[in-house]
Amino acid sequence: MFLTRTEYDRGVNTFSPEGRLFQVEYAIEAIKLGSTAIGVKTKEGVVLAVEKRITSPLLEPSSVEKIMEIDDHIGCAMSGLIADARTLVEHARVETQNHRFSYGEPMTVESTTQALCDLALRFGEGDEESMSRPFGVSLLIAGHDENGPSLYYTDPSGTFWQCNAKAIGSGSEGADSSLQEQFNKDITLQEAETIAVSILKQVMEEKVTPNNVDIAKVAPAYHLYTPHEVEAVISRL
Amino acid sequence: MFLTRTEYDRGVNTFSPEGRLFQVEYAIEAIKLGSTAIGVKTKEGVVLAVEKRITSPLLEPSSVEKIMEIDDHIGCAMSGLIADARTLVEHARVETQNHRFSYGEPMTVESTTQALCDLALRFGEGDEESMSRPFGVSLLIAGHDENGPSLYYTDPSGTFWQCNAKAIGSGSEGADSSLQEQFNKDITLQEAETIAVSILKQVMEEKVTPNNVDIAKVAPAYHLYTPHEVEAVISRL
Amino acid sequence: MFLTRTEYDRGVNTFSPEGRLFQVEYAIEAIKLGSTAIGVKTKEGVVLAVEKRITSPLLEPSSVEKIMEIDDHIGCAMSGLIADARTLVEHARVETQNHRFSYGEPMTVESTTQALCDLALRFGEGDEESMSRPFGVSLLIAGHDENGPSLYYTDPSGTFWQCNAKAIGSGSEGADSSLQEQFNKDITLQEAETIAVSILKQVMEEKVTPNNVDIAKVAPAYHLYTPHEVEAVISRL
Amino acid sequence: MFLTRTEYDRGVNTFSPEGRLFQVEYAIEAIKLGSTAIGVKTKEGVVLAVEKRITSPLLEPSSVEKIMEIDDHIGCAMSGLIADARTLVEHARVETQNHRFSYGEPMTVESTTQALCDLALRFGEGDEESMSRPFGVSLLIAGHDENGPSLYYTDPSGTFWQCNAKAIGSGSEGADSSLQEQFNKDITLQEAETIAVSILKQVMEEKVTPNNVDIAKVAPAYHLYTPHEVEAVISRL
Amino acid sequence: MFLTRTEYDRGVNTFSPEGRLFQVEYAIEAIKLGSTAIGVKTKEGVVLAVEKRITSPLLEPSSVEKIMEIDDHIGCAMSGLIADARTLVEHARVETQNHRFSYGEPMTVESTTQALCDLALRFGEGDEESMSRPFGVSLLIAGHDENGPSLYYTDPSGTFWQCNAKAIGSGSEGADSSLQEQFNKDITLQEAETIAVSILKQVMEEKVTPNNVDIAKVAPAYHLYTPHEVEAVISRL
Amino acid sequence: MFLTRTEYDRGVNTFSPEGRLFQVEYAIEAIKLGSTAIGVKTKEGVVLAVEKRITSPLLEPSSVEKIMEIDDHIGCAMSGLIADARTLVEHARVETQNHRFSYGEPMTVESTTQALCDLALRFGEGDEESMSRPFGVSLLIAGHDENGPSLYYTDPSGTFWQCNAKAIGSGSEGADSSLQEQFNKDITLQEAETIAVSILKQVMEEKVTPNNVDIAKVAPAYHLYTPHEVEAVISRL
Amino acid sequence: MFLTRTEYDRGVNTFSPEGRLFQVEYAIEAIKLGSTAIGVKTKEGVVLAVEKRITSPLLEPSSVEKIMEIDDHIGCAMSGLIADARTLVEHARVETQNHRFSYGEPMTVESTTQALCDLALRFGEGDEESMSRPFGVSLLIAGHDENGPSLYYTDPSGTFWQCNAKAIGSGSEGADSSLQEQFNKDITLQEAETIAVSILKQVMEEKVTPNNVDIAKVAPAYHLYTPHEVEAVISRL
Repeated sequence: MFLTRTEYDRGVNTFSPEGRLFQVEYAIEAIKLGSTAIGVKTKEGVVLAVEKRITSPLLEPSSVEKIMEIDDHIGCAMSGLIADARTLVEHARVETQNHRFSYGEPMTVESTTQALCDLALRFGEGDEESMSRPFGVSLLIAGHDENGPSLYYTDPSGTFWQCNAKAIGSGSEGADSSLQEQFNKDITLQEAETIAVSILKQVMEEKVTPNNVDIAKVAPAYHLYTPHEVEAVISRL
Repeated sequence: MFLTRTEYDRGVNTFSPEGRLFQVEYAIEAIKLGSTAIGVKTKEGVVLAVEKRITSPLLEPSSVEKIMEIDDHIGCAMSGLIADARTLVEHARVETQNHRFSYGEPMTVESTTQALCDLALRFGEGDEESMSRPFGVSLLIAGHDENGPSLYYTDPSGTFWQCNAKAIGSGSEGADSSLQEQFNKDITLQEAETIAVSILKQVMEEKVTPNNVDIAKVAPAYHLYTPHEVEAVISRL
Repeated sequence: MFLTRTEYDRGVNTFSPEGRLFQVEYAIEAIKLGSTAIGVKTKEGVVLAVEKRITSPLLEPSSVEKIMEIDDHIGCAMSGLIADARTLVEHARVETQNHRFSYGEPMTVESTTQALCDLALRFGEGDEESMSRPFGVSLLIAGHDENGPSLYYTDPSGTFWQCNAKAIGSGSEGADSSLQEQFNKDITLQEAETIAVSILKQVMEEKVTPNNVDIAKVAPAYHLYTPHEVEAVISRL
Repeated sequence: MFLTRTEYDRGVNTFSPEGRLFQVEYAIEAIKLGSTAIGVKTKEGVVLAVEKRITSPLLEPSSVEKIMEIDDHIGCAMSGLIADARTLVEHARVETQNHRFSYGEPMTVESTTQALCDLALRFGEGDEESMSRPFGVSLLIAGHDENGPSLYYTDPSGTFWQCNAKAIGSGSEGADSSLQEQFNKDITLQEAETIAVSILKQVMEEKVTPNNVDIAKVAPAYHLYTPHEVEAVISRL
Repeated sequence: MFLTRTEYDRGVNTFSPEGRLFQVEYAIEAIKLGSTAIGVKTKEGVVLAVEKRITSPLLEPSSVEKIMEIDDHIGCAMSGLIADARTLVEHARVETQNHRFSYGEPMTVESTTQALCDLALRFGEGDEESMSRPFGVSLLIAGHDENGPSLYYTDPSGTFWQCNAKAIGSGSEGADSSLQEQFNKDITLQEAETIAVSILKQVMEEKVTPNNVDIAKVAPAYHLYTPHEVEAVISRL
Repeated sequence: MFLTRTEYDRGVNTFSPEGRLFQVEYAIEAIKLGSTAIGVKTKEGVVLAVEKRITSPLLEPSSVEKIMEIDDHIGCAMSGLIADARTLVEHARVETQNHRFSYGEPMTVESTTQALCDLALRFGEGDEESMSRPFGVSLLIAGHDENGPSLYYTDPSGTFWQCNAKAIGSGSEGADSSLQEQFNKDITLQEAETIAVSILKQVMEEKVTPNNVDIAKVAPAYHLYTPHEVEAVISRL
Repeated sequence: MFLTRTEYDRGVNTFSPEGRLFQVEYAIEAIKLGSTAIGVKTKEGVVLAVEKRITSPLLEPSSVEKIMEIDDHIGCAMSGLIADARTLVEHARVETQNHRFSYGEPMTVESTTQALCDLALRFGEGDEESMSRPFGVSLLIAGHDENGPSLYYTDPSGTFWQCNAKAIGSGSEGADSSLQEQFNKDITLQEAETIAVSILKQVMEEKVTPNNVDIAKVAPAYHLYTPHEVEAVISRL
């Protein structure tokens, strides 16, 4: 069973007899090894919260960036290969800046997500911008545009979905169950912060501190919480 | 038997000794895993109906798009890899817009379908627009032009057929039989709606709701049904 | 014996130790799976007749095109992969239009056939117009030019022959024998129609109807028979 | 022994440990399957004669071209893959026309042969004009220039030799022996015709007729014999 | 177990079934073979110290460069393949010079590190600047900009982290433990020198001398210690 | 032993574990199959003599060219694949003509040899001028320039040496021994002719005649001996 | 053990699981087969001495160039594949000439060495200047610039070191030991000549003569010793 799989994934972008794309499935495995990230959408805005794995006390926690700004009105949390995520975010930043310059208005969150996924889909094509393998990263893209707040989830196959709440990474299975129990459409942004961090606390092996958790909101502008603001959320649990 | 197959599909676009193209056949397998979509043509116009798999209650049902507009007078339903379908639809949108701009008139439904299939046929060619593997998606293309309403069905090999009614995806076998029993050329558009959704109901495992079914018509313009309109069709069953 | 063959056809365009090109031979196999087509040349013009496989009663029979016009004075019948045939026909249409535009006269049937075969021969070359595998299609090209009526037969290797009568596809072996018995150079166009359709009737599993047979003639202009005209030929049998 | 060969010919243009190029040797095998062609040089000019395999009585014998004109003063007979030969001849026609246009005089027979062989040698190079495999064809090139009549023989490796008389194809071994016995430098053109066709008769399985034999001469201009002229030669045997 | 790995790393940039990139992991192995390098950040500036393996007394110790200047305000220590490191450093030097020229101010340390990692990430892409394999080198990048002193650590996957202190190379495991024990944020630059060299002394097999150790600081300008200055630090141990 | 070799030569230009380049070594094998060629340098000029294998009495001996002129003052004898040699000679002719045109003086013999070897070295590089495999030919390059007469020997690896006398091809081993015995620096050109042809006679299986031996000299201009001149040398033996 | 190696070196530029680059290691093996070369640096200048393998008395010893001039102030000795070395030297000559032209001053010895190694490092990249395999050659680069005399040693991985004395090639191990015993920084250039040639004498199988040894110095200009000067050094032993 296992050996026949190995026959197929040498060509990075070919179908198996069952109609599967193994390199994409393997990239999805890479994300299951990643740290957990959670996004929650409210009427006021979207909250993102991520676990940061600080492997050594000598590491500067602020340099382990798992939440990044794409534009004033869009941010994203990531799980999987960080270097791959940076490439996607950098691409999205250029796209949103170009859009502002060309049309004098911000790019919508869906268009930005689509632009990211177009790049992700083209792996193995051999052209200049694309990768020779799938991007080994999932993103939670939080934004706020003329349609109000929105939260998108992307996977390595270049597919995306809009969600009310979503968890990715190694603890995503348990976190998703908890989100379904605790989420409803009428929670406040503050309740969303509490839900996200309390669920993160459940799936993390270590004690939650401002050092190993990052929080950001888009409400309606992107804002990465200071350690003090993170501390405040944790103290509410 | 199985092992000799594996010998052939490493080259994505080569014939087997029996004259078969395995990568195309495997892509067709990918579609058999997809959600079911149904198209029905009447004298008044064409109806498309699709099953949407909502894997989590936190997913925004409207963001699972399985029916998309190509131009004012053309829409399509899809089954298989959604990211691949988006690429084909985006290509078709550019083609129809170019045609409008160059000739001052809408592109015919057949020409639009042909343009989509030209792109699908060229996989493995290594040029800029084409994919390195077959597109893992089937489309039902509904349109209305100077020849009246029409419904086309495309498969990953780049072949297309004109149909009166057609089902694709995991439930297509049973759905096609039901269509042959219930379809005749004189049904009204409203009857077509009822037929499409009632057959979808048979092949879906879950209860049919406005959340997990999308309906659209081209009669003569493309229109995606609102949840209320979908509810109305369901209540007629 | 079989395994050593598999060694050779990974390189799509290489010789085996016996001096054979397996990918071309496998493409020829693809044609043996195709529907039967028959061409008959008379002094008045050329007749083409093809079997159409209508896999579902919901399929529009007229959209299963197995006979296509190339130019006013040239048409062709095909057997094998229809998507491949469309590419060849599209190429030939451009060539004949360019010729008319550049020289103010129609392209000869032989030159048109040669242009088609040049494209077919170049598979595996990696340039823009060529395929990465042989074209899996055979054509019967019927035309009329300054040399009178002519009928050409092409195969996937890019070779072509001029014939008086020829059958291709799954029933070609039996049909060719019948053609040799019934054909002589002095038959009329009407007799050619009768011979072609009666032989098609022998090799088809189903009853011959205007729905599952297409007929065309080039005498001296290309004309695809209406269902009434097809009916008339069938009724003469 | 056989298996180790298969290791080497996957790379189309690499040496084996014994210093051999297998793809070229396999292409030469392809020619041994071809129909026989014979060339004979006299002081008056050169005669070419070929066997034509008419596989069906419905084939137009004149469309099976195994002798082709390159320029007014050069013609060639071929054995092997006819589609490959056409590519070479087309290339030579362009070269000779360019030469006439640039220098106002015909290209010499040797330069024409060299131009053909340069193309043949470059297989596997990946540039635009060359093939991805060796050309599977041998040519007998007959011409007449400022040095008088000449006859060249080319093989798939891109090598050429000047000969007084030469046979290629499936019957070449026996035919070459007969040529050595019967040829001398003082024979007339008419004697050369008789020798060529009588030897062809020996190696062919069928009766020699104007339908299955073609004859041409370059003396000093290229001329393809009419069926009547072929008949006349046959009747002299 | 081992054999299944070998199946995957032939394609230099593909995922294994477990979601791993083996070529990157193997490159990280290359660094474990390299000499040890240590970086320590203080409020006054950053200290880098490296072991130099002088394999022969005839080698010029100063030509074994394991610490290199990138710009006035940035230097780096390396472990792994020195030729790869030179390529990265050369790339960074061009980037920082371009930045100074375009913007009239020094590039920040983080942007410089990002530029290095962008190049590292793109291996196997086939474009002009990138390598066909991962860069087999880790860097400790010490710098001083508007945000004060900083120390970055990069690995072959193109990922980077900011650290207070970090060791790389064959002795990194033991050295990292010692750093965690001895480092605190309030140490002086001189204490950092002592810590770095005393830890290097523990992991090196030979006696520490100005010949086999290099030290540099960025405080705020890059300065490579002279043998006398190195001697002075050693004598303090 | 043999199987491990086959592992390495699929990549045409890679080292084996012992540091060998097998494709080059296999190309050198190709030359051991070739006909023998001999070069002898005297103070008056250089003599080249080659064996010609006339496989059929119908072949034109003068068309089997194993000695070719490169420029007025340079000629070469070859052993191995003749089509490869022609490509090299053609390249050298263009280089020497360009040099004359650009600098108004003949190219030196060493520069010409270097230009040939640069092309030979670049096999497998994929650029336009180079081959995808090593050139299967050795050359003896005889020339006369401002430094007087010179004789160079090249092999498929792109290496060259200057010699006083040298034999290549199937009989080279025995011929080289004889040359070492009979050669001294003070022999006349006539003595060199005699030595070269008498040694060729020893290694050839057939009787030496003007038909199966070619002789040329560069003294100081290139001159290919007429059959009469060859006869005269043979008669002196 | 051996078989697992063979798995990895098909991709010319990939890491093995242990972090090794086998093609580079195999290229280093190629150098161990080469003739021995020795370099010795003194305060007056640098001496290079090489063994020349004269395989036949008919070879012109002066044409076996193992020491070549790069610029007036730089020369190099080589061991390994001579054709590869010529390519590197030619590249360095162009670089040093360009530098003189652009800046009006000689290139430093280190920059010249770096330029050589940049080219060596880029093998397998597929661009125009680089090789498809590592360069199979080591160089000893002797030069004299504003920093006085210097001696560099390069290997196929593109790494270089500065040395006081160094031996490369088949006898390098023994020669390096002897150099360590006999070398000190205060020897004169004449003593360096004696040391280099006497050590060469130890590792060579044949008697040392002006025919099989070349000597050059850069002091401060490059000078290749005449046979008389070599004789003089030998007579001092």
